[in-house]
Amino acid sequence: MDFNFADRMGGLTGNAIREIFKYLSDPEMISFAGGMPNKQALPADILDGISRELFAGKGIYGILQYGSTEGYLPLRESAVEFVKGVGIDGAELKNTLIISGGQQGIDLACKVFLNKGDCVLVEDPTYIAVLHILKTYEAKAYGVKSDDDGMNTDDLEEKIKKYSPKFIYTVPTFGNPTGKTYPIEKRKKILELAVKYNVVVLEDDPYSRFRYEGQALPSIKSMDMTGHVIYNTSFSKIIAPALRCGICVADGEIISKMTLCKQATDVHTSTLSQALADGFLRGGYLEEHMKRILPIYADKKKLMKQAIKKYMPKDFESTDPSGGLFIFGGFKSGKETSKYFMEALKNKVAYVNGSDFFAAGDGKNTLRLNFTNSDDVQIDKGIKILGEIFAK
Amino acid sequence: MDFNFADRMGGLTGNAIREIFKYLSDPEMISFAGGMPNKQALPADILDGISRELFAGKGIYGILQYGSTEGYLPLRESAVEFVKGVGIDGAELKNTLIISGGQQGIDLACKVFLNKGDCVLVEDPTYIAVLHILKTYEAKAYGVKSDDDGMNTDDLEEKIKKYSPKFIYTVPTFGNPTGKTYPIEKRKKILELAVKYNVVVLEDDPYSRFRYEGQALPSIKSMDMTGHVIYNTSFSKIIAPALRCGICVADGEIISKMTLCKQATDVHTSTLSQALADGFLRGGYLEEHMKRILPIYADKKKLMKQAIKKYMPKDFESTDPSGGLFIFGGFKSGKETSKYFMEALKNKVAYVNGSDFFAAGDGKNTLRLNFTNSDDVQIDKGIKILGEIFAK
Repeated sequence: MDFNFADRMGGLTGNAIREIFKYLSDPEMISFAGGMPNKQALPADILDGISRELFAGKGIYGILQYGSTEGYLPLRESAVEFVKGVGIDGAELKNTLIISGGQQGIDLACKVFLNKGDCVLVEDPTYIAVLHILKTYEAKAYGVKSDDDGMNTDDLEEKIKKYSPKFIYTVPTFGNPTGKTYPIEKRKKILELAVKYNVVVLEDDPYSRFRYEGQALPSIKSMDMTGHVIYNTSFSKIIAPALRCGICVADGEIISKMTLCKQATDVHTSTLSQALADGFLRGGYLEEHMKRILPIYADKKKLMKQAIKKYMPKDFESTDPSGGLFIFGGFKSGKETSKYFMEALKNKVAYVNGSDFFAAGDGKNTLRLNFTNSDDVQIDKGIKILGEIFAK
Repeated sequence: MDFNFADRMGGLTGNAIREIFKYLSDPEMISFAGGMPNKQALPADILDGISRELFAGKGIYGILQYGSTEGYLPLRESAVEFVKGVGIDGAELKNTLIISGGQQGIDLACKVFLNKGDCVLVEDPTYIAVLHILKTYEAKAYGVKSDDDGMNTDDLEEKIKKYSPKFIYTVPTFGNPTGKTYPIEKRKKILELAVKYNVVVLEDDPYSRFRYEGQALPSIKSMDMTGHVIYNTSFSKIIAPALRCGICVADGEIISKMTLCKQATDVHTSTLSQALADGFLRGGYLEEHMKRILPIYADKKKLMKQAIKKYMPKDFESTDPSGGLFIFGGFKSGKETSKYFMEALKNKVAYVNGSDFFAAGDGKNTLRLNFTNSDDVQIDKGIKILGEIFAK
């Protein structure tokens, strides 16, 4: 049959990370590609215990049944407590929606706000999946210049005036892909601009708990007095990606619209996932879990930085973020990373071409490296292989 | 803030069943509203056992990690076997996509095929959520007349010619809300029309395993030689709704487009849910489970039919389906069921107004009754209460 697909499918190709994902089933592959937690950081034993308790409890029939779209009530209650960790104190149940992973929060925000042709501003570079999601809404993404400490707010203001965006998407803490963290002044300025021009801010925060040094910063949402900020977070990195479970906190009107849209997509998030996440938070496991994994990840970052210094060509410059999962780098010589990608894969090392993170495909000399997923030996070995390939 | 929402949000109100859902937390409420399995039919012990095995196995770290968008490979393999039960023999892995509940299959099909303003044909009445989903795509739903044995194919052909629909949505076995089942000739005719006019058929099949009498019929997909049919099924009713897990089988090109769209919405379905569903199928639990619950549901249907005869006004006529979860009925006198709805809720009985299932809001004299969720005592009591209310 000759299918008559929707217009949105025209420009839609797979997001690069997901395409690379297919190669990762090869057990010999060293993957610096996805933002995957380390195997050691997956709390299988804790989840096993919580699961046994859930199945032994009287509530199990309620957990296995249909649930409300807004989410499993105990988890929504836990969510209200959880976001206090990033300074969000005033959230009530009506401001929370449980989402099927952080990405669904972005998708639902797009569904609620975007008409075909609408504009969204993103930091350049930005989270790759946002660019993919925006294509499914036939919306336009424009990149805002990035300074060493995040989005350039002069350029942001200029582009707000020029493009009248529906929202600004940002990962202000240990941003993806660069690992950059916006200082408090920048956070305030972005909120100020959002209020001044009446633009929504979609603050995506999957990484702020992964701080290896320095002081925690309040989220932009914590400073929001006018309802301009949608705050998204996820349990994928702090518990387990497979749960597909996260939290969205926003103005009640936005949450109720997002709920209507979620109703239409997956009815509700897996209640088992929600109950496991709730058990994890409520049982007080998070703190000890993070205490255990943070030093492991901090060491891995150090190891990767050392390996980069040792093996990568001298014109390769990379970030040294104080948290998160990624190092972002580029060749001052302008060497195009995509040209080396297939050879790297053949040599069993995966990374992500940096240009995939740019709204208009810039940054062809850049790449993103994840340091959390690999073993220490793999980090050294993988960067050595990349060093040899990029030396060519 | 004065939010500037997308156009699609304009006409979007909650789907009626989901709105009613909020009342159902009242433990005294007798719900004939949602299509909820009975508590007795939720296989908590089996899932507990499978879950323990998963957590004890070496594969648990793979299960907790990010998975591929297409789905957990063992479940995709099981899915290929599972759909043989409805006569689909030729499915390969490239034809299967694991979805986050049956509803996501509908949503993804819409995303892949529908532009704003596109038309979709549905049986009148049809599954309520489809009408809601279509609104989120700003698509138009047109109802096709329904005979006692399902969609009227003359009217279908006329409306295909008139509206040039992108697809035809149908639940041919124990349809929602009517419980009707299309005979094999009708299935063939629908497929024939789809091929003749090059229209896709979205065959939704959450209920065919719930046959209480008579012979099983092949799915429309099983007769599809040209790739015109998308087949959707779900584990919500046969295992547990909370898993949010189902299967879509379609032409490889459609599956790859749906996969791109799924990437953008929830990355992948909860792997824990997928592994539980796979364990259920692979462990051979399904057959014994269905053997146990089918007689319970068949008895409940009988009980509800008896109660209807005993308590409901004489001008109330209702279906007596040979399977599924619902009885659909209407007042010959034209009595509008929505006018009695709030009083029923106040008296702790919930149903769904039939007009919510009609593309253009017809059927104001009808209502849908679910017979699987309630206890036997509740069925008698609830219908008695409805009988008294509708006698007024």
